[in-house]
Amino acid sequence: MIKVIAKNLFKQGSIENALSLYEELVEKSRAEKGCLSYELFQDIENPCILTMLETWESKEYLKAHSESEHFKRIVPQLGKMREQHEINVYAKIL
Amino acid sequence: MIKVIAKNLFKQGSIENALSLYEELVEKSRAEKGCLSYELFQDIENPCILTMLETWESKEYLKAHSESEHFKRIVPQLGKMREQHEINVYAKIL
Repeated sequence: MIKVIAKNLFKQGSIENALSLYEELVEKSRAEKGCLSYELFQDIENPCILTMLETWESKEYLKAHSESEHFKRIVPQLGKMREQHEINVYAKIL
Repeated sequence: MIKVIAKNLFKQGSIENALSLYEELVEKSRAEKGCLSYELFQDIENPCILTMLETWESKEYLKAHSESEHFKRIVPQLGKMREQHEINVYAKIL
């Protein structure tokens, strides 16, 4: 089981556009094989921080996700709206 | 539902001690009222990055957690082993 945490600081005023892009990304990613969860969270103190929490059955499914049509189309668009982006891939230990 | 992501960069050589402290923290935190999940993850590329993913029923339960005996005893000890610490409290939006 692989956990991905993708933390993003968006530019002021870009949240609404980002959310409509994320809606499609979430819907299509959840339908992918090996996707156990794909959830978007907003920081309760800073609404410009949007973090995606993903769980995948394996690294192979995560790799396939990053090569999917919707990922390759949507993620670069989100990239233009972000000031900071930090992604970590984890294994559960406790 | 409240999600907490506490990301930590530990000093080289401190992981084993950190893990034994985390074992107790995880066990006692999971037993607390309102704790829906309390899981520790290790970055697959950098083993010095340990991130706790917590889910709480409400901010009130999270607050009680931060005032618990085990939290107040263990977390400062972990603090001495860390180089960096980043904590965000989130609400789910998608």
